[in-house]
Amino acid sequence: MNITAFIGSSRQHSNSELLADYVLEGVPHQKLIIKDLNIQPIHDLRHDAQGFQIVDDDYDQIIHALLTSDIVVFTTPIYWYSMSGIMKNMVDRLSHAIRDERFPQLKEKLLTTEAIVLAVGGDEPKIKGLPLIQQFQYIFNFLNMPFSSYILGEANKPGDIANDEQAVAQAALLNKQLKTMISTL
Amino acid sequence: MNITAFIGSSRQHSNSELLADYVLEGVPHQKLIIKDLNIQPIHDLRHDAQGFQIVDDDYDQIIHALLTSDIVVFTTPIYWYSMSGIMKNMVDRLSHAIRDERFPQLKEKLLTTEAIVLAVGGDEPKIKGLPLIQQFQYIFNFLNMPFSSYILGEANKPGDIANDEQAVAQAALLNKQLKTMISTL
Amino acid sequence: MNITAFIGSSRQHSNSELLADYVLEGVPHQKLIIKDLNIQPIHDLRHDAQGFQIVDDDYDQIIHALLTSDIVVFTTPIYWYSMSGIMKNMVDRLSHAIRDERFPQLKEKLLTTEAIVLAVGGDEPKIKGLPLIQQFQYIFNFLNMPFSSYILGEANKPGDIANDEQAVAQAALLNKQLKTMISTL
Amino acid sequence: MNITAFIGSSRQHSNSELLADYVLEGVPHQKLIIKDLNIQPIHDLRHDAQGFQIVDDDYDQIIHALLTSDIVVFTTPIYWYSMSGIMKNMVDRLSHAIRDERFPQLKEKLLTTEAIVLAVGGDEPKIKGLPLIQQFQYIFNFLNMPFSSYILGEANKPGDIANDEQAVAQAALLNKQLKTMISTL
Repeated sequence: MNITAFIGSSRQHSNSELLADYVLEGVPHQKLIIKDLNIQPIHDLRHDAQGFQIVDDDYDQIIHALLTSDIVVFTTPIYWYSMSGIMKNMVDRLSHAIRDERFPQLKEKLLTTEAIVLAVGGDEPKIKGLPLIQQFQYIFNFLNMPFSSYILGEANKPGDIANDEQAVAQAALLNKQLKTMISTL
Repeated sequence: MNITAFIGSSRQHSNSELLADYVLEGVPHQKLIIKDLNIQPIHDLRHDAQGFQIVDDDYDQIIHALLTSDIVVFTTPIYWYSMSGIMKNMVDRLSHAIRDERFPQLKEKLLTTEAIVLAVGGDEPKIKGLPLIQQFQYIFNFLNMPFSSYILGEANKPGDIANDEQAVAQAALLNKQLKTMISTL
Repeated sequence: MNITAFIGSSRQHSNSELLADYVLEGVPHQKLIIKDLNIQPIHDLRHDAQGFQIVDDDYDQIIHALLTSDIVVFTTPIYWYSMSGIMKNMVDRLSHAIRDERFPQLKEKLLTTEAIVLAVGGDEPKIKGLPLIQQFQYIFNFLNMPFSSYILGEANKPGDIANDEQAVAQAALLNKQLKTMISTL
Repeated sequence: MNITAFIGSSRQHSNSELLADYVLEGVPHQKLIIKDLNIQPIHDLRHDAQGFQIVDDDYDQIIHALLTSDIVVFTTPIYWYSMSGIMKNMVDRLSHAIRDERFPQLKEKLLTTEAIVLAVGGDEPKIKGLPLIQQFQYIFNFLNMPFSSYILGEANKPGDIANDEQAVAQAALLNKQLKTMISTL
């Protein structure tokens, strides 16, 4: 079972990344740190005669991860009540990716790629993070990806997520479920 | 009365920009086309000993617009059910801007800067755009900016917004209200 | 074309009812004033061996309206950020109605029954009424009813809705669209 | 420490009530089964010259519970994506209660009454129950009640809630926290 965690923070060892570490402890996975990749914003050419043009950046690494993972974990700090801009640019580019002739199998692959969302914020994330979860739901619905679970964590200072008992308990449970999935393959 | 429209689309003459044109027809304003500016993603250094560092890009134009406008119009296509990544990066940088020692007056200025949101999407925007509106509400609440109104428009192909009778009617009404405000100054 | 407006207010001539009057001015329709009907809360017997039992109240009038209308207008004051309890009890009973052997055609009929929502509140309804709209969307989705439009109006004192220019403009547009639909039958 | 659980289900031993039992296991509390009380829908007389009139039903039991509890647990099945109609009628009557001259201390008491929400549904409650949580947040905000936590559980058949590992884990954690609060009084 292949698992990829997309890490959308602008900080190293961010609280959201720590939450992903709790969820994936002892579970084989790869991390893609989005801020370390060169990802251009979408240029919407859906309605252009030539359509989308190949972009010379690192986005193929994202597509490759989507094509080879059974589970993808969208891990993001909550900046201004939604995902970080760097993760949003990654998501926006999906409009191009699902039309990219080099990857005709992408849309079908996603039908069986399970999505998990981990989001950590400092301003009442368990309430004010709900619109973000609804948006992820719409995103996965559009792509027909199964949205298996999400955790909203609360943290301000580096490392704070360890004090959010509820998020830590949810992460432990998800970790157990992932380990069960692996052992029963 | 100064009005700035931030345009968050990746296309020229996008439907969202057209909607802004309806709202601002005959009303003096400036446009800031975000995709034509060099705006770096936020690097969250709130918890760093040195704090945020000066970023060498065009963001000061955004701050200048915020400091000099009575009304700001956040105009964005709805990409994947939220604002475009380029607009999100602009918003994310507010975390730095409101702590920037060069602009100590910014936070106080925003208390009286009226915010308008115009968002146009192709997939049931009047429903699936609601989480985006809730997020803008949280953003303006955090900044204590008055959130005076929003319009959710539906459009797919270039120019389609002209066919959304409801959005066009709302834009006409908002246009009338803006003209009244100007004439009574 | 048959149109039924369900009126969910506890007051006569409520602001929400006035908004319905704007929308339906000059358009043939019937009104069902829910507070004047005897409607029992749902008793959830889905999992009971005998299933739902016939309830001796006025709910058949609701079912009859659903079976004979091309358009239904859910008109409700926003009490505590959602529909009124009397309208909620009416909605809850749909769980029984769609399983009622006396009305086997109800579910199929609803597939072509257009739904409109009019909701009026006093505390920032255009923002804080959005969860209510999302719930109606889930309701109509579940029933596969087309959800054609909604208006969120702001009003406190009796008659105040007349001062909500945006709601009045939206009502006028919807009124025009309904008249066009009728004239082109 | 006084705890009251308001039970909004129309079934005995409903899944939502079971979830409350998990949360309150070993914790002294009282339950108010709303369906067993006679609670009239609100009659909105805020704008009437005489104001609200005394209603001859069991609502004073609700008010009494609010006046004497340190924690109140709103426990509801998710019917049609929001709280049950019987619980909604109870909530609607708060508009009267906070203006009731017989209970001038109610509004102030609520400032320190902690609210917990437990909601159980069968159709993707962890996503489609989010508007309900947002509404409760608006309600508690209006009343200035601290909204300490919520659990969204998934269940269809009687007893199913026991299979929602995440809800059960959250309930166990909340139970532990309540016991700690009691022991440190």
